This record gives sequence, C-alpha cells and structure tokens, in this order.
Amino acid sequence: MKRAVLLLSGGLDSATVGAILKSEGYELFALSFDYGQRHRIELQRAREVAAALGVAEHKVLSLDLRAIGGSALTDDIAVPDYAGATTEIPVTYVPARNTVFLSLALGWAEVLHVPNIAIGVTAVDYSGYPDCRPEFISAFESLANLATKDGVEGTKFKVLTPLISMSKTEIVRAGLACGFDYGLTTSCYNPSENGAQCGRCDSCKIRENAFAELGLPDPVRQS
Amino acid sequence: MKRAVLLLSGGLDSATVGAILKSEGYELFALSFDYGQRHRIELQRAREVAAALGVAEHKVLSLDLRAIGGSALTDDIAVPDYAGATTEIPVTYVPARNTVFLSLALGWAEVLHVPNIAIGVTAVDYSGYPDCRPEFISAFESLANLATKDGVEGTKFKVLTPLISMSKTEIVRAGLACGFDYGLTTSCYNPSENGAQCGRCDSCKIRENAFAELGLPDPVRQS
Repeated sequence: MKRAVLLLSGGLDSATVGAILKSEGYELFALSFDYGQRHRIELQRAREVAAALGVAEHKVLSLDLRAIGGSALTDDIAVPDYAGATTEIPVTYVPARNTVFLSLALGWAEVLHVPNIAIGVTAVDYSGYPDCRPEFISAFESLANLATKDGVEGTKFKVLTPLISMSKTEIVRAGLACGFDYGLTTSCYNPSENGAQCGRCDSCKIRENAFAELGLPDPVRQS
Repeated sequence: MKRAVLLLSGGLDSATVGAILKSEGYELFALSFDYGQRHRIELQRAREVAAALGVAEHKVLSLDLRAIGGSALTDDIAVPDYAGATTEIPVTYVPARNTVFLSLALGWAEVLHVPNIAIGVTAVDYSGYPDCRPEFISAFESLANLATKDGVEGTKFKVLTPLISMSKTEIVRAGLACGFDYGLTTSCYNPSENGAQCGRCDSCKIRENAFAELGLPDPVRQS
C-alpha cells in the first residue's frame, strides 16, 4: 500500500492534497503543528479534515514558532487587507516554516518507514513565499536522502506536491472532484475567535475568487 | 561585527564551536532545544556554557521530539555500552534531528538577519550519523538559500562547522587553547538525575579517551 505523511493545516490546500492522495489509494499519516498561530481554529479544522480523510493517524506537534518571531501569522504584526497579486514576499511569511515542517515530517516518516511526504504548496503561493517554489522542494528532497538513515540505506524519500502547478480554482475543482467538503476547512489569516472569516485578507479573497470562478457557493463556515 | 546563531546542546562539541567562534570575534546567538531528551542536565549545562561564552542571547525552544519517537535518546530504548568504533548508525540517532535543528536555527537567523549558523558536527560522528556528514551540511546550505526571504534577496547563509574534520582529541585541544572550561559541559547519553556521567556509553568513552590522549584530567562534574 502506498503511504504518505501529509502536512495538514486545516486550510484548503493541504486538505485538497489529502483528498487527492486518498483517491489515489494512499494511506495517510497527518501531521499538524501547534506553532503559536494566531488562529486556533486551524487546528480544530485540521482535526475535522483528518477525520474526513480517514487518516491512519493524526499527530499534532507543539512547536513555539512565536519564540522565533518575525511574521504577521505568529506575532502582533497586523495582517494587511488584500492588495492584489504581488511578487513581494508578504508579511505573513513565517521564517523557514516549510523547511521546519518538512524536517519534522521527515523525522516522523523515517520512524514510520513511510517514503513519501506530501505538502500543499501551490503556484499561487510561490511567487510570494520562497519556500513554496519547485526548486526549494527539489532541494529538500535531496537533503532528505542525505539526512536520514532510511535515505542513506536505500529508501528514497519523495516530496509529493500535487498542487504545485495549480491555480486556486484548479485546486478547488480537484478537491470537489474527489468529493471533498470544503466546509471543513478555514482559510482566513485573521479569523475571529469563533472562526468567522474576515473576508478581506489575501487568503479569504483568493478563496472567494476561486469559488466565484467555478460559479459555486463557498461552503466555508462562519463559526 | 561577525554574527552567528550557534546550536548549543550543553555537550562538548557545540561548546567548543562557541569557544572557537568567540575567539574569532563572532557575536553569538545561542539556540538550544528542550526536545524531550532523557537527560535534563543538558539544558542546565547549555545555560552555563552560554553564560561562559558571553552570548548576546540564549533561546531555549520547546519541541516535543518524543512525539515522533524512534531514538534511545528520547524513547525508552536502552542506551548501549560502548562497543568500539563502528560504521553502523547507532540507536542514539534521533530521526532528522540535525535537519530540524538547523531549520529552526535558520528561521531565527533570518529574523535576526544573521547570515551564519554554527553546528558542532564532527568527523567522529559522521561515520555513524548521516546528518553529520559534510555532504549533508552542503545540501542544507543550498536549501537555506532557496528557502528564505533573506537567502533569495541576497544574504547568503553559511553553515559553520569548524569541527567537521577534527577528532575528539583535536576538539578538546582546540577548546582548551581558547581557554574554555570543559567542566561546564556534559557528554553522557545516560546520566543519573544529578548529572553524574555513566562512564560506559559511547559518548563517555570517546570523551574519556580524548582527555587521556592529551594526558589531562577530564574536568567533567559528577553532579
């Protein structure tokens, strides 16, 4: 049976990765992080998504990225409203986040002897976030096979990025084709305590546009 | 002024890296991990070493590697007695540990705009631990410069490994030449509650041999 460790955030992209891999017959081991993100709703949604995907195991690892600081997603820096597409690195960028998350996924994958790590990086993000680009993913794959006992002894780790060349609209279409319920996910960078989406940040706007392009209502919950 | 984030464990190697860099005029930002290691004495010693090195800041980050498991250093797997030099990967190997630690150091380095990360990997270890080899370090350096905003925008991150081709005896000689007091460090994989060294594990034996070769007493404390 094909097996993969899935980095799962509670957002739309990683849930779609899970839905796609599940439809391809993968057994999934979901890994989420309690990293001091402002919006605790993410972890609640990650648990619901993991359950809906029928994962073999869901681990939530504590990791205090706030102690390092430097991002609007973990610090007291204000999340800006959407200002259109940009190639600048946004203030919501968390330093080295995907490197850290992939490293921990690699550690767990090695313990489980699972050769695949799946992450929901997308073309939408990689103009802005350096650690979402295809060349970053390739470099991590090379590193993984030098870094680990399994890699050295013969298992070749692969990083699965089924969304990497998809637009947000294509991602939503792919997830819907797998029967995934996006009402389980949250996207907002700045939700209220009860999970209501702000409707104004980059992430809300990009999601809204994707559902609008498909001519479908967004099932996102407001609590 | 030259600046570096120093991965500091409370052991002999990382302390020596600190002593060498300090003697070369680096300002140091020490990073230690509370990762569920069996021996809490490590973190106490890391604090003492950081103070002795006069670091600009010492951060201790919580990270529950026990949740991932797979090592005698974090799990209930017995630490074996020293059985001579070997090229096998030891049970004390923690999956992806250096990848995870370097990633978090990279995140902090990026926030601080510090271009160097220093780690005490050594030739003594890299026959046994895949993530101590020079090719692993090079791969991480490449990754760092693809992964980060600073790397992409021009700062080139370097991973400093001043011990990488040294034997344990050469390491101790180098640290002593900088005036470093090894009585501040702990080496044992299996210390008692009060910090007494077992004298039987790989790490104790390798340290003991190094001081013996130099004809010097080991100032390691037994509590």
